[in-house]
Amino acid sequence: MAGGALVTIEGIDGAGKSTLVEGLTRELTARGVRVEALREPGGVPVSERVRALVKDPALQVDPRAEALLYAAARAQLVGERVRPLLARGALVLLDRFVDSSLAYQGAGRGLGVEAVRQVNLFATGGLEGDRTLLLRISPEVARARQGSRAEAPDRLEREGDGFFEAIAQAYEELARGDPARIAVIDAARGRDQVLRDALAAIEDLVSVVSARAAR
Amino acid sequence: MAGGALVTIEGIDGAGKSTLVEGLTRELTARGVRVEALREPGGVPVSERVRALVKDPALQVDPRAEALLYAAARAQLVGERVRPLLARGALVLLDRFVDSSLAYQGAGRGLGVEAVRQVNLFATGGLEGDRTLLLRISPEVARARQGSRAEAPDRLEREGDGFFEAIAQAYEELARGDPARIAVIDAARGRDQVLRDALAAIEDLVSVVSARAAR
Repeated sequence: MAGGALVTIEGIDGAGKSTLVEGLTRELTARGVRVEALREPGGVPVSERVRALVKDPALQVDPRAEALLYAAARAQLVGERVRPLLARGALVLLDRFVDSSLAYQGAGRGLGVEAVRQVNLFATGGLEGDRTLLLRISPEVARARQGSRAEAPDRLEREGDGFFEAIAQAYEELARGDPARIAVIDAARGRDQVLRDALAAIEDLVSVVSARAAR
Repeated sequence: MAGGALVTIEGIDGAGKSTLVEGLTRELTARGVRVEALREPGGVPVSERVRALVKDPALQVDPRAEALLYAAARAQLVGERVRPLLARGALVLLDRFVDSSLAYQGAGRGLGVEAVRQVNLFATGGLEGDRTLLLRISPEVARARQGSRAEAPDRLEREGDGFFEAIAQAYEELARGDPARIAVIDAARGRDQVLRDALAAIEDLVSVVSARAAR
C-alpha cells in the first residue's frame, strides 16, 4: 500500500460487481474519501483496445493468447493509472484483477493457476490488492440475472455452466488460501446488504487512507 | 521438431530479414520443399490486430504490456498456425520469434531476459526454433538501409541508436549461449551471399523434412 489502497472486486459474471463498485464509489465519496473506480480489462486507451479484441465474438482467441492479452491490459492499467493513483493516496476500486485471470484462464481454460500467476506477477510487477471482495453467487442465479440484461452476451459470457462452475470453485480455493486478503460476501442478497458487508470488509483501509489524507 | 521444422529469422530492424525470408521461400519452393513463411507479430487475424495496436505511434505502450502483447500474438500464431503446419510436415519460416522479445523487451526495454523468457515459455508452450538465423549487422548500417525506405518509421523503429545497440549485444549473447540452434550470418554483404549462407545453415533440416515428405 503505497499511500493509497487497492481494493479489487471479484466474482463470476452476473455476481453484481459493477453495481457494488457504483455503490462503494457513491458511499465513500460522500464520506470525503478520494475514490477512483476502474474496470478490467480497460481503463486506459491501450487496455480498452485489448478489451475490444478479447471480447470480440467474431474472433477465435487461443487460451494462452487470451491469458496474455488480459495480462497485457493489466500491465498497462497498473503502470499508467493504478500505481500513480496509489502514490497520490487514492483508494482505487478495481472491477476485476489478477484473481480473475487465475480463475477464468487458470482454472476455467485449464492453463493452470500457478502458470497464470507467474505471468501476472510479471504484468503487475508484484502489485497485489490490499483487500479483495469476492462476490459469491451460484452460476445459476448469476445466469438468471444476466438473462434480464439488454446487451448481447460477449465471447466469454457465452460459455456454458460447467465453465462458470469451475471458475466459482477456483475463486473459493483462492479465498481459502488467502483469507487475510480475500473477504467473501454473499452476493445472492439485495444490493444494500452487499454494499453494507463490503464497506465493513474495507473499513480498516478506508480509515488509514482518510487519516493519511488529513495529515 | 514434430514432422516439419521451424526456422526463425532474427536481427535488428534493417538487417534484411524479410528479404531473406523471400529468398529462402523462393529457393526452397523451387526445390519442392513445402515452405510456409509467417511474420511476427501477425500471421493470423488476432495477432494482426495485436500488431496494429503495438505498432501504433499514437499509443504509449507500457514496457510490460508491450512484452505481453508480443507474447499474446505469438501464442495465437503458434496455436493456430505453426503447430498445425509442423504437424503436417512443413518447413515453417518465422520472421522473428522468442529471441526478438528477449532482445527487444528483455534487454532493450530493460525488463530482464530471464523474466521475458518465462512469459514466452508460457506463450509457446515450450516450442523452440529448430534453427535460428541471426542476421548480424551494425545499428548504423541498418539505420542507413531503413532510411532509404518509403514508409514512415513505426513506434519501435523511432527508438535511438542506444536502444538498437543494446539489442544487437543481447542477440550476440543469445548466440553465444546456444550455438547449436543459432547460426550467425554476416548481413552486411549482398543478399545473394546472405541467402547462400542461410541455405547452408539449414541444409540438414531441409534434408530431413524432404526425406519425410518423400516417404
